This record gives sequence, structure tokens and C-alpha cells, in this order.
Amino acid sequence: MSPLIERYKKTRSLTIKLLKDLEPEDLLMQPTEDASPIKWNLGHTTWFFETFILVKQAPNYKLFDDRFPFLLNSYYNSLGARVDRSARGLLSRPYLKEIIDYRNSVDEHIIKLLQSGLPQDAENLFELGIQHEQQHQELFLTDLKAALYANPLQPEYARIKMAKSAAPVPLQYKSFTQPGLIEVGYGGTDFCWDNELPRHQHFLRDFQVSNRLISSGEFLDFIKDDGYNQPLLWLSDGWARKTAENWNAPLYWELPEYGWKEFTLHGWRDLDLDAPVTHVSFYEADAFATWAGARLPTEQEWEFAQAQTATVPFNMLNEESADGPFHPVAAPNRSDEIQQMIGSCWEWTYSGYFPYPGYQRQKGPLGEYNGKFMMNQMVLRGGSCATPQSHIRPTYRNFFHPDKRWQFSGIRLAK
Amino acid sequence: MSPLIERYKKTRSLTIKLLKDLEPEDLLMQPTEDASPIKWNLGHTTWFFETFILVKQAPNYKLFDDRFPFLLNSYYNSLGARVDRSARGLLSRPYLKEIIDYRNSVDEHIIKLLQSGLPQDAENLFELGIQHEQQHQELFLTDLKAALYANPLQPEYARIKMAKSAAPVPLQYKSFTQPGLIEVGYGGTDFCWDNELPRHQHFLRDFQVSNRLISSGEFLDFIKDDGYNQPLLWLSDGWARKTAENWNAPLYWELPEYGWKEFTLHGWRDLDLDAPVTHVSFYEADAFATWAGARLPTEQEWEFAQAQTATVPFNMLNEESADGPFHPVAAPNRSDEIQQMIGSCWEWTYSGYFPYPGYQRQKGPLGEYNGKFMMNQMVLRGGSCATPQSHIRPTYRNFFHPDKRWQFSGIRLAK
Amino acid sequence: MSPLIERYKKTRSLTIKLLKDLEPEDLLMQPTEDASPIKWNLGHTTWFFETFILVKQAPNYKLFDDRFPFLLNSYYNSLGARVDRSARGLLSRPYLKEIIDYRNSVDEHIIKLLQSGLPQDAENLFELGIQHEQQHQELFLTDLKAALYANPLQPEYARIKMAKSAAPVPLQYKSFTQPGLIEVGYGGTDFCWDNELPRHQHFLRDFQVSNRLISSGEFLDFIKDDGYNQPLLWLSDGWARKTAENWNAPLYWELPEYGWKEFTLHGWRDLDLDAPVTHVSFYEADAFATWAGARLPTEQEWEFAQAQTATVPFNMLNEESADGPFHPVAAPNRSDEIQQMIGSCWEWTYSGYFPYPGYQRQKGPLGEYNGKFMMNQMVLRGGSCATPQSHIRPTYRNFFHPDKRWQFSGIRLAK
Amino acid sequence: MSPLIERYKKTRSLTIKLLKDLEPEDLLMQPTEDASPIKWNLGHTTWFFETFILVKQAPNYKLFDDRFPFLLNSYYNSLGARVDRSARGLLSRPYLKEIIDYRNSVDEHIIKLLQSGLPQDAENLFELGIQHEQQHQELFLTDLKAALYANPLQPEYARIKMAKSAAPVPLQYKSFTQPGLIEVGYGGTDFCWDNELPRHQHFLRDFQVSNRLISSGEFLDFIKDDGYNQPLLWLSDGWARKTAENWNAPLYWELPEYGWKEFTLHGWRDLDLDAPVTHVSFYEADAFATWAGARLPTEQEWEFAQAQTATVPFNMLNEESADGPFHPVAAPNRSDEIQQMIGSCWEWTYSGYFPYPGYQRQKGPLGEYNGKFMMNQMVLRGGSCATPQSHIRPTYRNFFHPDKRWQFSGIRLAK
Repeated sequence: MSPLIERYKKTRSLTIKLLKDLEPEDLLMQPTEDASPIKWNLGHTTWFFETFILVKQAPNYKLFDDRFPFLLNSYYNSLGARVDRSARGLLSRPYLKEIIDYRNSVDEHIIKLLQSGLPQDAENLFELGIQHEQQHQELFLTDLKAALYANPLQPEYARIKMAKSAAPVPLQYKSFTQPGLIEVGYGGTDFCWDNELPRHQHFLRDFQVSNRLISSGEFLDFIKDDGYNQPLLWLSDGWARKTAENWNAPLYWELPEYGWKEFTLHGWRDLDLDAPVTHVSFYEADAFATWAGARLPTEQEWEFAQAQTATVPFNMLNEESADGPFHPVAAPNRSDEIQQMIGSCWEWTYSGYFPYPGYQRQKGPLGEYNGKFMMNQMVLRGGSCATPQSHIRPTYRNFFHPDKRWQFSGIRLAK
Repeated sequence: MSPLIERYKKTRSLTIKLLKDLEPEDLLMQPTEDASPIKWNLGHTTWFFETFILVKQAPNYKLFDDRFPFLLNSYYNSLGARVDRSARGLLSRPYLKEIIDYRNSVDEHIIKLLQSGLPQDAENLFELGIQHEQQHQELFLTDLKAALYANPLQPEYARIKMAKSAAPVPLQYKSFTQPGLIEVGYGGTDFCWDNELPRHQHFLRDFQVSNRLISSGEFLDFIKDDGYNQPLLWLSDGWARKTAENWNAPLYWELPEYGWKEFTLHGWRDLDLDAPVTHVSFYEADAFATWAGARLPTEQEWEFAQAQTATVPFNMLNEESADGPFHPVAAPNRSDEIQQMIGSCWEWTYSGYFPYPGYQRQKGPLGEYNGKFMMNQMVLRGGSCATPQSHIRPTYRNFFHPDKRWQFSGIRLAK
Repeated sequence: MSPLIERYKKTRSLTIKLLKDLEPEDLLMQPTEDASPIKWNLGHTTWFFETFILVKQAPNYKLFDDRFPFLLNSYYNSLGARVDRSARGLLSRPYLKEIIDYRNSVDEHIIKLLQSGLPQDAENLFELGIQHEQQHQELFLTDLKAALYANPLQPEYARIKMAKSAAPVPLQYKSFTQPGLIEVGYGGTDFCWDNELPRHQHFLRDFQVSNRLISSGEFLDFIKDDGYNQPLLWLSDGWARKTAENWNAPLYWELPEYGWKEFTLHGWRDLDLDAPVTHVSFYEADAFATWAGARLPTEQEWEFAQAQTATVPFNMLNEESADGPFHPVAAPNRSDEIQQMIGSCWEWTYSGYFPYPGYQRQKGPLGEYNGKFMMNQMVLRGGSCATPQSHIRPTYRNFFHPDKRWQFSGIRLAK
Repeated sequence: MSPLIERYKKTRSLTIKLLKDLEPEDLLMQPTEDASPIKWNLGHTTWFFETFILVKQAPNYKLFDDRFPFLLNSYYNSLGARVDRSARGLLSRPYLKEIIDYRNSVDEHIIKLLQSGLPQDAENLFELGIQHEQQHQELFLTDLKAALYANPLQPEYARIKMAKSAAPVPLQYKSFTQPGLIEVGYGGTDFCWDNELPRHQHFLRDFQVSNRLISSGEFLDFIKDDGYNQPLLWLSDGWARKTAENWNAPLYWELPEYGWKEFTLHGWRDLDLDAPVTHVSFYEADAFATWAGARLPTEQEWEFAQAQTATVPFNMLNEESADGPFHPVAAPNRSDEIQQMIGSCWEWTYSGYFPYPGYQRQKGPLGEYNGKFMMNQMVLRGGSCATPQSHIRPTYRNFFHPDKRWQFSGIRLAK
């Protein structure tokens, strides 16, 4: 089997493995506009391959269903009308079984096409389809978590008993002095997103970053110190949002009668004080940093620091088993090296998601993939416990609006 | 089999028959706050029997599931906390199969209880459970219609080919002169809702009512005469709502390139000009009446006129087959008698839904059934094509806010 | 001076007297969409005379300012475009002095016209303009109160020291037995609104009404008994509104550290427990009645009971001095007769504001005066402490949506 | 007279001169939450001097009015409770005359304090008060413009007849090659805001900027090419906002029957095609740039380019006469040098308003001045026709959310 076919099959089957014991009814919930139904997710990634590969490369290819592009287009204005994002939860039809048929049909056509050899100039697009499906594997987990939480019964997804984290190593700052002019952005020859390009020079001052992610216990200290009620700790827009939404803890935390609990993909459990805090907005991360006498790193500082460390990816989605703790855990390494850079939590940086100097938006529909979102969003780095391990790179720029909390987002400090 | 058991089984099985070929995914949609998911509907009517009959009458009865009262209570404040009405669409769990198990279990217990004999004082409550399930059979159809319409694929529910209506008889007004003091409200000994009581005297002036419902063709004339854009035809609140919601035709009508279409439970079809217009709000019905130089009848006029006619129920939900046109059709009767009083469309009256003189709200939770809704709603009379035929009475008072359009509501004129 | 001229001058000058020491800046506030700025009020009543009298009756009359009809039309769709109601607070221009010039100019023209003799068929319209101005004298006071309250400094309007009310007479119910068929509606030959017509027969059962208005002290008992938190006392729409708006007392009441206070047109004062409770919505009035084991009267009951009593108007706006307590006070009468029917507070009835049988809406723009509001509103009877005394009649039907609280609305009970 | 006293008097009197012929009623409008009433503006700047200078430096100083800090605090959480920003339009009281008294009283105390000598460590704070008042002179004009436009009569502020602009010089791009490492931020010893610090190194690639601002005529070409309806030209958040707000031209433009008009502080006039386009959001500026095959400059590019040009401030608020065109005009210079960098329009840059590397937020309440707004806003450079000329610096960083349009914001392109 060719490596491309193997890679395709592996990626596509990981998505299906994630379904585990879920029933069709579970795949239809849309608890918020951000969190799409899983069924839509399964269809959308398939539509992506159909639209960008089969329609263009497979001779005489006929659409599986003429109505699907309208239903499954996410945000490509250049590809015509589409269902309102907020109405994806109304897609009782097509049924799951039809979506599965769709997946199988597209898979067959793709594999046949790969067997006959993909034109050179379509390979990057094919790889992009793979990467896109991986992004939606992460969204599968985060959107499902939002849906299970919104369901009044708040059921669990996976029944693994999660071990409590070991105590993290003491929090320390690592210093980087006189870095001067550094290189930022992807410099390799493999796949990367256009937003990681071009690799360019950036001037960096001295800085320090913390050796690990902030733990839930440390964040609880912020709460106990009334951090959610001290306006001077917060950005103005953050304070307004916090107030409007009545935030008083990270998303998925609750204080029932007998102590703090957190909702995980394994259901409710006692808050694990030693695990990294997660599901915080940029605003909460920033307020915490201010409270702690520190700040959040810029994405350039993060990238530079990462390049100086030897830490390996850890605490990510296992692509063989479709398993994992599905939650951040404390780093196992007892050294005082910088830890948890890749995996566990996406780390908020104090860098706006803007084009790199010299950035060129792709021509055609895929120009809508990244460039049009370069406003009002902040960069996150490093992947999370829900990211497929093969998907991440140190130069990877993820981005969310600063009030979003449903991703596995966490906090690293800088000075 | 005792009549009670037979009646119970027949009612409960009609609900199940209505499921026809629907899949679990179809039963989960909540397109608006008004239109509950069918799965919730199935559970809620079962919860009603469990709560008001089994818990009180069945010795040692144990709840099927402790969490269900929270999930399936509709609006009974006296029965504790409940899921927000707008969140019913998030109930991926319990799965449909669990709800069906629930129905079966409650059915078994009820039948066992009926076999051992229901206490005299529980019989009215039992009958109320039956009537309640019938109301939800109508909602099953109207809420399903809203859900299918909201689904971007707008699929059909039933695949019967609907015949076009025959031309209706000419519109005429029937006069009722010197009625003087009449009796209004239910005077029989069978079941009725508390809002139909007490039977009481009411003074009526001369009036006229139209011999049939207004047709879609007649309503189209109103549209073509720019009726939706003439503020002087509208009530002030109606004009504001029309403007805010951009109404320019009844709900479910659309004007594509080749002529007016309407969405039915059989899917889209050419607008049947001869069928009664339906899915109009009170505001639209009133504006139409003003345009036509008439007005809507009061509920007392309607009740008095109905009592003088010989028309029989027609165009309702068939309780044996769970079938029907699921849509208003023209009256078959060629006479100029008053027609379509019972069936086809609920008829808006210009009577607020207020307590009758001497009305007594029931004690206990069932006091919340009707009385607390006696504000801001208008009375509708006569049942519709979605009403089970055995459910209706001439004195039956249905009620909706004047802006609601998802019921099979139509127009009869008065002068 | 002709009686018409005298009447006109007196009415118009009362409006100006109400200005007292207010400054132009005070007349511009629009705290809610309901409460129009006083400056707009002054202009609107003048526009009414200009539009309905001068334009039609005064030979060669030229509009004072061509732009004013757009600015000062309230809700007459038949009279062309107009400023959004919610934007009246943006009318920095025309300045107050221009509005006063406008008033003076229209007054001159009207008086000249009256001197030359008003055509017979314009007299009713002229009277309607007088009555309209009187309605806006009441709104002057209620809207000003809302504006002063919304101003963070919450200044007072009038500096009279209000006396505390004497203890009211004990609450008793007066019985009316076998009333049978009664006459309702205006039967005289003087001015009345079209909504008081036609006088018609109505069948009335036995009933009782309370001999006086409910006092603030009695309402406080309801609060202390947790009446605002018992859903079973409330109508469903009322409970929803109460919850959405966080009502826990009548409008203008507050519980500071040292006891209940109320905001009046004389500023803040200790809550007068013996004065009638006011600024309650229909919902609160109804919940109170349910809590008290009673109900609100219908408008027919109210009208019938009023006709049987000898009480005289009391506690209204003094049309000579433009003075008054500007607040409900306890009835001075120590008898157990029915008191406070006319004056003090508008009394909520459990009657929808609908057309009387045989009601005919006026032709032309004035058909918009009353008829188009006959939906979603409840009838109030009897006038208030802000009503000019010559304006009221026992058959007078005032109307507001059931959630409105900025009028001087109070509670009388029935059984 | 000491220079400080002179500077204080001059600044304060400029504010008063701006009042021109406005009446108290004009100063009370709050057309949007962003645009504060002028009366509030007059009070707020006075409160600033009272709070930060008099309270701290003047021996035994007694507040002019204890209630004013609550009314006039803008957004300083560290200074206690305050009136909701959206409720400033309800401040009928204090009257304008009271606010003028307040200004005079504070002025007297400040001058007395300056005469006795300001402590060294209070001088920066005093200067900050001056600069703050200057910022509010600009807001005076932009907020007043919004208020006059919202008034249905849309009156003019100043009655100067504006000359039509001369044709601008041809649009050209100036190249800056190999700039490498540059210095950014304020490096002088006079006053600057904390957000301009510290001066720091930044690496810059080659770039080009346009020699002048984009004209209204050029922007009209974008409109005529359907630029407002081509989603691929827009950022995703921009497209959403444009759609929600129905933008189809810059703010204050209208297309009446006989051609494009624009509303200015001199009232309506024919659109001046040769004047710089203004009142565009970042989103519109960015979409225009994309349409033009260019982009917006970064703030570092802008600052570097400015430093290389010889253009002088032009088209700003005249601080002697309180006059000016109050609108952008074409540059008079006929050379092809870079023009209009300082004055005319604030220029949107594609730089997020974030802290410079090493930025230190001030301690105490003034730490809230700039730092807490460093999120979701974009940097604008160069001042506008409403900026007092002595207020601006090349390193000055203004900032607004990308959807704001009520400032004099314009477009310069880069490549």
C-alpha cells in the first residue's frame, strides 16, 4: 500500500474510531454556535476531500449528493451558499447512516485515485485534506464535550478511570538573555499552513518563561484571592465579558456542596489540583498572569523557548487507539527543564493572530482557510490533549477569539 | 378488556403509529422554543401518567428513572425544577429506545392498575392524562412540521399524494338575530377542561358569521392588494410584529420563480387556492378581516353559531390509521350551510383567553394546566386537521398568543 | 370670552404651569421608550391641534414649521413618516424656546379661529384635542417621574412636604347580588372616547368588590410572605416577566439599610404604609389578589359598582393650581362605603382591552386613536392622582400592557 | 504668567470656545454608547483635574460636589462606582450652568495651586491632565457630529462654507528598502503616553507606502465595483459586521436622488471626491486595500516612513481660534513626497494595540488609562482634522475597535 493511501486510511479511520459507543442521537447536538454537531463534522471533512480532490482530479466524478455542498460547506464564500452555522443542529437529515455511506463512497474514490497516482500539484491539497481532518478530530472531542455538558444528564464519553496527576515540579522561570535577532516561522520542507510563512527575522529582548503550565491548584488560589472580582487584574474587554457571562471559574468547573468538581470527557470528577488548568479564556489567562506578577509570552518568545528545549510531545490524542486521557495531566518529567510545550493544553500567547511580514494569502477558495480570520483572535501554541500527535509542529499557530473557553486552552507565564 | 384499558391502549398506540418511518435523529430537532422535539413529547406524556396516576395510585410504585421528572416536566412549578424549555433539543440522551422502554414500562403499570380497578377519584385524572396525550398528538404533527421545515433539506413526513381541493362554496354570511341571553360553556357530564366552566349566561347582540373558512385564494387576494403593507389594516402590536419578522405571507408559503408554493407534511406543493388558508397569526387574521370589511367572531358568537348548525366533524386526524390529509381541505358539502366549524383549522376569535365568570382554578399542580395561561392569549375554536377527532368539543377553548403561526390556524369572518 | 376659548386657554395653560421650575435640560430625557421627553410632549399636543384643527379649518393656514409633523407625530400611520418613538430623546432641536413659540403661535391661530366661530362638525374634534392634551398632562407627570428617577441624582419635581396618610378604613367587601343584565358604556351626550361606545347590555353574576384600594402596607405583607418567589401565585407570562426584570417590589420602591423607601415626585421618602400601593403591573396586582384569596374585578363589575356608590373624585391633579400631592393618599372618608373609585390610582381590571359589541372605529386618522391598540392590553378604570379632574368619567377605559408599571396603577380586589 | 498657567488656561479655554453657539439642549444627546454627551465631556475633564491634582496636591481641598465623582468618572474601577456609560445621556442634572461653575471653580483652584508652585512629582500628572483634555476636545467634535447626525433635523455645527478640495496628487508608492533593525517608540524627554514606551528595536523588511491618503473618489470606485458585496475582499469578522449593520458606504455618506452627499460638521454637502475618505472602519479600510491589491501598513512601517518625510502637520484643529475645516481636505503640496502623515485622518494600521516589549503599566488609577484597553483594538496613527495640533506626535498610538467609524479615520496603503 502506498504511503499516501496508508496515511489517508489511518487518518480517516481514526475519526471513525472516535465514535466509540456514541449513538446517532449523540452526534446531532449543537450546544453553541461554536460547537458543531459531530455528524456535521463527519460530513464536512468528507466534503472537503470531495470538493478539493475528487471534483478536480477524479475523471468524470459525480457528486455523491447534489445537496451536500450546501449542507457541509463551512465558511467558504467562494464555494456558494451554505447552511447557517447556527442551524447545523437542525440537520436531522441526512441521517448518520447516509453520512457514513458518503464517507465510504468518497474513501473508495480517493483510494482509487491514489492508486492511479495523484498529480504532483494535487499532493499539497491532499495533504491539506488530511491536516484538515486532523483539526476536526480535535474539534470532535471539544465539541462533543460541550454537547455532553449541555445535555442535562451530562453523560460521559469514555469510561476510563483517570488517575490523579502527580504533583507538578515547582514553578520556575527559565531565562533567555540577549537573543537578539531570531528566525520565526516554518523553515522546513514538509507541510505547514500558510499562516506559518514566511520564515522571517524578529528582534527579541531578554525574557523568561515558566518551566511548566499553571496547575488547577494554582488557578484555584487566584479564585480564592477573589481574582474574578478585582477589575484591576483584567483587561477592559475581559472584565466586560466576564461580567456579562458571570464567569467565576474556568468552564466546566463547579463548586457543589462538597468541593470543586470538573467535568471531563470521563464525566464529573473531583478537581485535580495538580493537573494543568484548562478551558480558560485569554482574558482569564491574562488576569491570572497579572495577579501572579507576570504576563503571557508572545508567540515569538514561545517559539524561541520551545526550540531550546528537549521536551517531547506528551499527553496528546493517541492516533492508533483513538484513546488518551482526553484531559491535561501533569508532566511526568521530574527535572526542572521546560516541560509541556507540546501537548496537554494550547497555550495562550499575547500575540494577535495577524499575518507574518510578507504573508501571501493562497489564491482560490483555500485563501479563505486562514487569512480571513486574521483579526480579533489571539495565537495559541503547542497543541493539546485532543490534538493528534502527528498534527502538531512547534511553529503551528492556532487562533481563537480571546473569550473562547471550550478548547483545551491553558496558561504558561512569562516575564 | 375494560373500556378504560381499551381507551388507554388506543390512545397510546396512536402516538406510536404517528412515528411512521421517522428515525431517532428526526425526533430530536427543536426548531423554535415553541416546537418541542418529538422524543421529548413522547417522554413528557408518559411522565404525565407516571406522575399523576402511578405515583399516587400504584402501591409501592418506583420511578422508572429518578432523573426523568427533571427532564420531562413541562411547566409545573409545583413539581420542582426542570430543563429549560429552549434546551429540550439538547436531550441526545435518554435515547429514543430508552424513552420507548419508559413508555412500555409505564403502560404495563397503568394497565395493571386499571385491571385492579382505578379508585373513583382518580378517574378524572386518568381521563385528563388521555386528553393530555391527545393534545400532544396534535403538537406532534405541528412541531414535526416546524422541524422538517427548519431542516435545510425540508423533507416530507408522509408520502400520500394530496388531491387538490374542489372549489369551495361561495362565501356567504349567516345571520343570527336577537339571540339575547345565551348559555356558554360546557354543560354536559363528560370530560371537559376547567377553562370551559362554568356554563354561564352571556348577552349576545345580532351578528353574522361566514358560512365557511377563508380560502388560500382569498387570502392571496389580500396579499396582492398589498395587505401586508397597509398599516391601517393592522392592530398596532400586529404591525410591529409583522415588521420585525418580515411577514409577507402565511408561514410555510413561498413565492419561488414559478408561482406560490406551500410546505405541507407531504412536502412542498403548489399552493392550493381552494383549500382553507392556514398558519396565520391572529394579527394576520384580523388584518384580513378588516380588509374584507368584516371582523373576527367572538368565542360566544362562534359557540352559539356552531350550536345552530348540523355540520359534522370533518378533516381531522384519523385515530384508527394515524392518517389524514394532515392539511386543511375544502368542505365537501355543497350546501350553503355553515361548514367547517369542527376540523380543518382552529379558528381565531376576537376573545381574550380569560376565565369565565365564576371560574375556579383546580387545586394542586393541575391548577397550572390552564389557569396560569389566561393572559395575552386569544381563544381559538373548533379543532384542526391535526386534532384527534374524539378530542374535540364545541365548547373547547384552545389558546395561543396572537403572533403564533405554527398551528393549523385559520380564519372565519363575522360582522 | 366664549366658553370654548376659556376652556382651551385653561387647558393649554395648565400644561405650561406644570413646567414649574424645570429647565430645558430636564425636558429632554427619555428614560424608556414608553416615557417621552416632556419637550416632545409639549410639541406633540400642539401638533395635534395644528393638524386636526388649523390645517383643516383655518383658511390659508401655513404650517409653523414643515419639519414638525415628522418630529411630532406619535403613531398615526395615516399621517406619514415619523421619528422612531425611541429616538425622541435625541431631539436636542427644536429647542424648548422654539417649541414654546410653536405653542404660542398655534394658540393664537386657534383662538382666532374660535373667535370667528368653529364649524359645527369641527367641535367634536376640537374637544378631542382638549381631551388629548389632558391625557398628555398625566403623561407629563408619569414620564417626568421616570426621567427624574433614571437620572442618577434622582432629583425631586415638587418640593411640597407630603403628609403621611392616615390609616385607611378596614378592608371590606361590598356585595352586589343578582345584578343580571346591566348597561355598560357611555350613555350621555357629552364627549367620550369611541372605545366607551356603544352602551350595551352585559350579563353580570353576583360579585363583591373591596371598599378601598390596597395599601402599601398590605402589599408589603405580600412581599414579606415571599409573594414574589411563589410561582403558583403568578400568571405564566407574569412570572416570566418578573424573573426577566428581577422585580421584587413595585417600581420606585427600594430597601436601603434603614427600611423601605419610595421615590415620589417629591423625591425619596419613607414608604407610606397607609397610602394606596401604586406603580404595580397587572401581573403584580393579579398575584397579590391570588395571594389574598381574591381576584381583580372585571371592568363591567367595576363600572356597575361605581354607579352604586356616592364617592366623589378625590386625589387628582388640581387644574387650577397645577398642584396636588402627585401621589395616591388614603381616603379621608371614615365610612365603610366604597371609596377611591375616582382618583388616587388607575385600577387594573381583569378585562382585556377589546372592542365593545358593535364598536365602530372612527374613519380617517383618528381611527388610529384607540382601535388599533385593542390587543394585549388590559383595561384600567378610575383615573389617578395625575389625572386632571375634569378629564375622567366612570365609563372611561384606560389601557396598558400588563407589564407596565410607570403609571399610577393600583389594586382593588373582587370576589 | 508662568508657562504652566498659560498652558492650562489656553487648553481649558479652547474647550469652552468649542461650545460656540450650542445651547444646553445640544450638549445632552448620547446617540450611541461611544459618543458621550458634550456636557458630560466638560465635566469629566474637570473631574480629572480635581481628582488627580486638587485632591492630592491642594491643601484642605474640598470636593466641589460629593456626587460628581460618581457622575463623571469614566472607567476607573479603582476610583469607585460610576454611572453606566450608556446612561450619560440621562444626566439632565447637573445643569450646564452647574458644570460651568464646576469648571470655573476647579480652574481657580488649579491656578492658585500653580501659582504656589506644583511639586515636581505632580508635574507629569498635570501634563497628563492637559493631554487628557485635548483628547476630549477631539471627542467633543466627533461625538457632537454623531449627535447632530442622530437628531432628525441633522443641524450643522459651524456655518463656514467649505471649499471643495483641489485634486490630489497622483497616488504613488514610496519604497523603503533594507531598513533592517529600526527603533520604534518615543525617545524624547517631553510628555508621551505610557503606551509609546519603551523605545525598542524592531526588525523591518522592505516595504512601500502610498504618498497620500485614499480619496473619497477612489473609495467610491470600490463601492461602484461592488466592493461591499464581495466577501473575498473582507476579513471574516468584518464581513459579519458589515452584514449585520447593513454598511454600504462610509458612515455619514448617503445616496439621495441626485448624487452622493456627506454629512459634515458644516451640515450636508455634495461628496467631495478629492478629499480623503473618512469615517471608515478598519474592516472597510482593509477590504479596500485588498481590492486595490495592497494592504494596510503596520504601525512600525508607518512610524519609520513618517520619520523619513518632511511633511508638516496640516489640517488639524486650530488651537487659537477653535476653528478649522473640521473635515479632511486634500493636501496642498503638489510634490510627490509622502503627505498627510500628520493631520487630516487617523490612519488605520494592521497592528494590534498591544504592549510594546518591556511595557510597564503605571501604578495606581492611571494604570487604567491605556493598558487595560490593549486587546481587540487596532492602532491608528497621525491625528486628524479634529486633533489639537499641539497634541500629536509621530509615535502617538491611538486605538479603536476595528468596527468603529465615528472618528475621522482614513486609509493609507502599503505593499
